[in-house]
Amino acid sequence: MSSMPIALAGIGKIARDEHIPALNDSPDWHLAATISRNAEVEGVRAHEDMDAFLADPGDIRTVSLALPPAPRFAYAKKAIAAGLNVMLEKPPATTLGECRILQDMARDAGVTLYASWHSRMGAAVEEAARRLRGAALRRLHVDWREDVRQFHPDQDWVWEAGNLGVFDPGINAFSILVAILDGRVHLTRAEMVVPDGRETPISADLEFGHGDGARVSARLDWGHKGAPVWNMEIETDRESFVLTRSGTGIDDGQGEIDLGGETAEYALVYARLAELVRGSGSDTDLRPLEMAADAFLLASRSIGPPFEW
Amino acid sequence: MSSMPIALAGIGKIARDEHIPALNDSPDWHLAATISRNAEVEGVRAHEDMDAFLADPGDIRTVSLALPPAPRFAYAKKAIAAGLNVMLEKPPATTLGECRILQDMARDAGVTLYASWHSRMGAAVEEAARRLRGAALRRLHVDWREDVRQFHPDQDWVWEAGNLGVFDPGINAFSILVAILDGRVHLTRAEMVVPDGRETPISADLEFGHGDGARVSARLDWGHKGAPVWNMEIETDRESFVLTRSGTGIDDGQGEIDLGGETAEYALVYARLAELVRGSGSDTDLRPLEMAADAFLLASRSIGPPFEW
Repeated sequence: MSSMPIALAGIGKIARDEHIPALNDSPDWHLAATISRNAEVEGVRAHEDMDAFLADPGDIRTVSLALPPAPRFAYAKKAIAAGLNVMLEKPPATTLGECRILQDMARDAGVTLYASWHSRMGAAVEEAARRLRGAALRRLHVDWREDVRQFHPDQDWVWEAGNLGVFDPGINAFSILVAILDGRVHLTRAEMVVPDGRETPISADLEFGHGDGARVSARLDWGHKGAPVWNMEIETDRESFVLTRSGTGIDDGQGEIDLGGETAEYALVYARLAELVRGSGSDTDLRPLEMAADAFLLASRSIGPPFEW
Repeated sequence: MSSMPIALAGIGKIARDEHIPALNDSPDWHLAATISRNAEVEGVRAHEDMDAFLADPGDIRTVSLALPPAPRFAYAKKAIAAGLNVMLEKPPATTLGECRILQDMARDAGVTLYASWHSRMGAAVEEAARRLRGAALRRLHVDWREDVRQFHPDQDWVWEAGNLGVFDPGINAFSILVAILDGRVHLTRAEMVVPDGRETPISADLEFGHGDGARVSARLDWGHKGAPVWNMEIETDRESFVLTRSGTGIDDGQGEIDLGGETAEYALVYARLAELVRGSGSDTDLRPLEMAADAFLLASRSIGPPFEW
């Protein structure tokens, strides 16, 4: 099958770290245009904004949006209205309402809409799901800690209302959790800490209900120091293991087995996008975002110490 | 068609004010059992809890749950697992995750699940929708104010995390809003006031995006004194009118026209339930709850004066 041209909107850190390398190595896609006010990619046709791109998209039928969540919705609407296929970085939008509208528009326009969850593509996620099938889950604890100063240095917008705070990394855990537990899990309790003077949570403790009565819980912390911890401790009637490093490793107690780097996640995301576009399908699993919304619905909030960069 | 037996769980204020009178007048249903720890209905077989009822449901194939949101999920799961049809008061559950699980269970069990929105049955809602079809909406403002002391006297649980606060009446407005605007509306901004020492909002100011760019907004207030105000001020390119008293009246500026009392709402809810059960269908529109969840996701929160009954 021939390689398809794609436009990438939002040429920031995530685009350079993940999207562009994945597209450069992809058998399915080649980066044919960029849409960004601030940056360009050498040798690729550059547009300042979505309107400028849509004025002359050439043979490009697909746009990938690596923008922050806030401006993503307007861009997605414009692209779908112009009859283009759209891929969304996670989270797919700032609200469930925006997601609904994009789903409706894509269905009416007959284009592909792909709400991607890159962490779900982690090399060990399918292995964890395999171990859980046929076993009885007893306990699962999500331990998801990273230093916000490392991943969002000086980005004050992450603390503004309408953003997810620590649920921005947490939603990656949710995307894995929903996948490996086959959706048989739902939030029952949430406690959040919001830094004094800020609007989004820096940490959260969560409890979940599970179809078989297993104890499922999560600790999310953006105030962590040092290397990130992205683990799920899993105990079934057969075995105990840890799904490590955001779904890319497994630790059975005899040391960690690396099943493939995180960098493969975006290669798989773009392979999935190609499959959807070629089959004229869409994939918009909103359950991870619903889980974050449920946390905000349920949460007891307390005010923590002020946060300074 | 013959009248079908139904069980009613939760014999509190809403059951006595609405459900029981509607069932007594229904051509489709007769109240054949109650499930309640605290109360009975004269002449009707009484059960203390869902387990006691399910031990011997007789020929009853349908249960209506008029319990508060928190215990409703466990009861709904048990009833569906026993192969019964289930109707849920609004809101259908405390979280979207609970709703998903009930939807999945009902589909797998082949039973009817009806997430009812009684306010959507208001006699003037269809008239408002008719006026909006084919017209261009310019402005819509939801003005939804009531005295929490009148509707929930001394019920401290309404202020506990996991409840909706002022979004409990607000979700009635959302159920109408989604219906008359055909889903082409989504939340874009929310400001909430939470009483000092409480966990749920007493008031909220909301802004919405609309498919045609109309200005859509809402003011929800549980601290209102006097008779409730449940209005939607609507302006199109053709006319201005107010949908009054929670979707039961229309005011064109020459005084209010009452299109039928609120009491008819539950008659229509139970007629819809009968239609669903006879056709083996389900109706679980989660958009009003999603809109409330979106408000909690987006909200800027401020602390207001302490609330005392």
